Amino acid sequence: MTGPTPPRAAAIAPGATIGIVGGGQLGRMIAIAAAQYGLRAHVYAPDPDSPAFEVSGARTVAAYDDAEALAAFARAVDVVTYEFENIPRRTAEILAGHRPLHPSAHALATTQDRLAEKTFVAGLGIATAPFRAVDDAAALAGAVAEIGRPAVLKTRRFGYDGKGQRMLRPDEALDPAAVMASLRGQPCILEGFVPFDREISVVAARTADGAFSAYDPCANEHRHHILARTVVPAPGMAPETAAEAVAVARTIADALGYVGVLAVEMFLVREAGGRSRVVVNEIAPRVHNSGHWTIEGALTSQFAQHVRAICGWPLGGTARLGAGVEMLNLVGDEAESWAALLAEPDSHLHLYGKGEARPGRKMGHVTRVKPGPGETRPG
Amino acid sequence: MTGPTPPRAAAIAPGATIGIVGGGQLGRMIAIAAAQYGLRAHVYAPDPDSPAFEVSGARTVAAYDDAEALAAFARAVDVVTYEFENIPRRTAEILAGHRPLHPSAHALATTQDRLAEKTFVAGLGIATAPFRAVDDAAALAGAVAEIGRPAVLKTRRFGYDGKGQRMLRPDEALDPAAVMASLRGQPCILEGFVPFDREISVVAARTADGAFSAYDPCANEHRHHILARTVVPAPGMAPETAAEAVAVARTIADALGYVGVLAVEMFLVREAGGRSRVVVNEIAPRVHNSGHWTIEGALTSQFAQHVRAICGWPLGGTARLGAGVEMLNLVGDEAESWAALLAEPDSHLHLYGKGEARPGRKMGHVTRVKPGPGETRPG
Repeated sequence: MTGPTPPRAAAIAPGATIGIVGGGQLGRMIAIAAAQYGLRAHVYAPDPDSPAFEVSGARTVAAYDDAEALAAFARAVDVVTYEFENIPRRTAEILAGHRPLHPSAHALATTQDRLAEKTFVAGLGIATAPFRAVDDAAALAGAVAEIGRPAVLKTRRFGYDGKGQRMLRPDEALDPAAVMASLRGQPCILEGFVPFDREISVVAARTADGAFSAYDPCANEHRHHILARTVVPAPGMAPETAAEAVAVARTIADALGYVGVLAVEMFLVREAGGRSRVVVNEIAPRVHNSGHWTIEGALTSQFAQHVRAICGWPLGGTARLGAGVEMLNLVGDEAESWAALLAEPDSHLHLYGKGEARPGRKMGHVTRVKPGPGETRPG
Repeated sequence: MTGPTPPRAAAIAPGATIGIVGGGQLGRMIAIAAAQYGLRAHVYAPDPDSPAFEVSGARTVAAYDDAEALAAFARAVDVVTYEFENIPRRTAEILAGHRPLHPSAHALATTQDRLAEKTFVAGLGIATAPFRAVDDAAALAGAVAEIGRPAVLKTRRFGYDGKGQRMLRPDEALDPAAVMASLRGQPCILEGFVPFDREISVVAARTADGAFSAYDPCANEHRHHILARTVVPAPGMAPETAAEAVAVARTIADALGYVGVLAVEMFLVREAGGRSRVVVNEIAPRVHNSGHWTIEGALTSQFAQHVRAICGWPLGGTARLGAGVEMLNLVGDEAESWAALLAEPDSHLHLYGKGEARPGRKMGHVTRVKPGPGETRPG
């Protein structure tokens, strides 16, 4: 005899309020997706000019460590999610103490620390770059001796878009103390170089019931460590490699008991004989820039899918619409080309409502769907 | 030598604020479309629970005849539009006195009065139902004698979804005074019966520069005078009839100097020989329920297209995506089927966030796009 089924949180009904921690473009697009399903959005962010405030019915302007404001926010909503992974552990605990938090504090803790993340992924038998924990100059010297160079030293926490990392080249003199000082002595991880052919990601969703659905793996091109272009299907990716990438994402999502949309960034490494294998680079416990193409390019957008998952709703279809999709980020002053982009009849322009186009700031994106039948997805 | 080009209002740039008068689902979907282009939305509506408030950065809760609130609202935005045509003339004048109002007060005045509208359309040489002005019982008796029955007596203003109208059947005794009293003695129009085969509409957009773009004409089915289902392409509609319908919409839009999205509702009348001709029923100077299918079913949604037009931007592509599109309204308690609709992988569910599912109230809609190549549009 099996035991009783554990109690499960009731599904959220339209009219309920989703709490979104973080007020950037990802929160903004989650709020829009929620509205299309008749849900309300309450956004929590410290900056009164947060882009997500413009499309949310309720707003809390407060710091991410303001325990009182966090508790009041959580009590005012029906479920809590977030748009970025650098949420302090205490913040996640306060939120989860009042309302369901999806993805969970556990998923957050595992993925916001590069060392915990790599250890977790490697523990699932999934390939990663070689890595070592580096807490001080002596550890760095030892890790470099073991892993070799080129290698990248990264802070364990709070890195994004190439921030908080330092490339260690084989042809440069290594001064471990100076390198550690340049990252302000923070706990780090040294990652060995992976001779990859291409960077891809799998954007997928999982529900509390264990339902899982992935979009077509996409190829990502970065410029100055910032995503510049996503193309789907990933050029030259064999169906069996795509299936392997999706299976890896599912193994990770299942092992985390994940609820919501996640993105798994991977390297495609070409092996002798021309086959490719995937190596996991990192996990984003949230909707992801490389999934923006799904707004027009897939049956259900990643934002709508995330809302479905955190509400306990069935996942939507993830079939690709069209023979291929291209998404270009508009970074910094690239958004100044908005008028030309609007004049292209086949381009879908998205702007995030940010005031100042600072260099490196993601201001919007453009999606182009190439007409034609979408291919069968591998996952 | 030609004279100087007349000054033209500068195009609105992303970051600007669109003022939307009316807080229902149409305003809500305009606000969402504006947000995707990095525009801000300021919604003006009397009901503090207005659905559009949930997705707008700024809100004014005030009556439609509150001159002071209207002026303050207009001064706070860059361009004003509206989601319904029953805006008092004085309200339109106040708004237009401060900021560009699109569509114009002239378009509004022409289309919000059924007599002015029919007179205008007939004056363009476009077929309408036979009609007569009816201001009192004597005029009603005379008009019935001329036009015959069946006929429909409609109030000239403030009618929608079958409200403010009365069918006059040939087999019933006619008591003109009683009929006028049942419409509270308001100025009316008597419209002769058109033996139509099908109801269609053309949703189209025009810019201040005269650019024009129409979606595929769609077939509309009503239940209790409320739109129940829209199908595109309209079944059995010959390409030349579709082209004629689009040409009629363009003639109307050009004659009004129209800016924004409009919908022209028409009857398809089958003639001897099997050909069909179009008879204009009414003009909606706004985005329209029969255009909701464009959100997933066309390259540019009617809401995005309206935003483009009123901002002075180039119109987006209107090509249909997929071999066919069906849109079903969810009226009253039909929205209770939301969970079943969410479980259909190919259905796009939209809910408007309205609290109470009163009978006849539009609560949401569902769109299904049938995969396959979209056909060439006639317009």
